[in-house]
Amino acid sequence: MTQTRTIFDRILEGEIPCHRVYEDEHVLAFLDIGPLSEGHTLVIPKERKAFLHELSDESAAAIGRVLPRLARAVIQATGATAYNILQNNGAEAHQAVFHVHFHIIPKRGERGLGVGWRPGSLDGAAGKELAARIAAAIS
Amino acid sequence: MTQTRTIFDRILEGEIPCHRVYEDEHVLAFLDIGPLSEGHTLVIPKERKAFLHELSDESAAAIGRVLPRLARAVIQATGATAYNILQNNGAEAHQAVFHVHFHIIPKRGERGLGVGWRPGSLDGAAGKELAARIAAAIS
Repeated sequence: MTQTRTIFDRILEGEIPCHRVYEDEHVLAFLDIGPLSEGHTLVIPKERKAFLHELSDESAAAIGRVLPRLARAVIQATGATAYNILQNNGAEAHQAVFHVHFHIIPKRGERGLGVGWRPGSLDGAAGKELAARIAAAIS
Repeated sequence: MTQTRTIFDRILEGEIPCHRVYEDEHVLAFLDIGPLSEGHTLVIPKERKAFLHELSDESAAAIGRVLPRLARAVIQATGATAYNILQNNGAEAHQAVFHVHFHIIPKRGERGLGVGWRPGSLDGAAGKELAARIAAAIS
């Protein structure tokens, strides 16, 4: 999927306009045209990757670095105080455009992200074994 | 809220155990004890801040940098292919522990994050004005 040209490539290349709020060497941020709330902003790497797990350390660090600054600006401009950062990977996880993007979504009353939370519980022995497996898989 | 000592401080200081999957100078990652799905992992800065917009560039970049690597490890260890990254700010946005944390939440069938999505539409003139206001608010 990484090779597919998405609407975000067309935005990055200036073929399609966007309401840009920030740009640097690695990152572009612009308003979502289907906002869940006022100020809903997308933050994307210039690197063309479909999924976060494909992204280079450098691009991922650059996005991480600007998120607090962008969140402060969204708060200041909109007056929202609560917000969610969301990044979806895979159609099953609600990803619609297959170029990595982080959402900054202000939460105001009914507007914003709906969060469905049905927690299980982590068994001690299973947790120990799973944590060890994940740790061992870190490259 | 930044001054409040949370359960994550107690984990960071070793008072409470966790199922650790990763640690470096700036970041600790461990399994959520109330997982939405198998492999649900929390990634937190060692810096004690309640909200993402309070976090230093350095901590935020360090978290960003390791997210792809951690996502790859969670995928490999669990067999999940879809997942969400979620970071909540403010009780209204579903934040429960007031120390910045990023969730990595595998999505498998009914298990995982429930995403509620009720998009509006961005008016061109309003979008232009709002983008300019956010851009101007970036420090």
